[in-house]
Amino acid sequence: MNRKEEPLFGLGKQSSDTEHFNGEVYVNEILDFDYPMLADTVTFAPGVRNNWHIHQAGQILLVTDGTGWYQEEGKQAVPLKKGSIVKIPAGVKHWHGASKNSWFTHIALEDWSKGQPEWLGPVAQEDYDKLEDKDNE
Amino acid sequence: MNRKEEPLFGLGKQSSDTEHFNGEVYVNEILDFDYPMLADTVTFAPGVRNNWHIHQAGQILLVTDGTGWYQEEGKQAVPLKKGSIVKIPAGVKHWHGASKNSWFTHIALEDWSKGQPEWLGPVAQEDYDKLEDKDNE
Repeated sequence: MNRKEEPLFGLGKQSSDTEHFNGEVYVNEILDFDYPMLADTVTFAPGVRNNWHIHQAGQILLVTDGTGWYQEEGKQAVPLKKGSIVKIPAGVKHWHGASKNSWFTHIALEDWSKGQPEWLGPVAQEDYDKLEDKDNE
Repeated sequence: MNRKEEPLFGLGKQSSDTEHFNGEVYVNEILDFDYPMLADTVTFAPGVRNNWHIHQAGQILLVTDGTGWYQEEGKQAVPLKKGSIVKIPAGVKHWHGASKNSWFTHIALEDWSKGQPEWLGPVAQEDYDKLEDKDNE
């Protein structure tokens, strides 16, 4: 998406979490009731990503709108687009977020029962700046 | 979808379940490993739907492609399209499937730990025939 279109499963509410994201993020909680799993959509403004973090039981991303990136520590960033599925292994340090020029939405599926994510430091701006949107449009 | 396009998150494999569906169905298991929840996509050929059934812990449907229907017992069928979200309550008898003239794909999210679905009889053809695709395109 090149502008603030409505994502496939709704935009939801703007997140107040400025600690783990570097900019404007919206969350639509799909499973907003008692369920053994988290399922929500996360929409990132262009250039916005989360900090490096680790999921205790892993996480699944299903990309519904726009283009973005997923990177595991020590590996190349992987470009993501509509239809991409990412299976983030448990215990692996990683980040995900939008490309520079596109809004980006993924569904996130996660087993919360194994504990909260471990949040680490931000993605270095100079590393993010090296990512080439042309590989991802 | 008006033909057999690739659904957003993949077509997956043709189901061999001819007992609970009245025709061609494909399943793509997203969580194909040990996880506390089922998450898969189900793709129905035009006119195909499942039997009436009940989920012990409810089920969430996220429609990614095409048009279809969701009906709870004693209520009007609800038309579904790309972006529709259905929260099926626990214990409620219902069915879902494609409209007459469109392939149809939804993601299904479900807590299997509460038990298997209770399968009931097929949707009567005369009731399905009464559904108006024009309300749903």
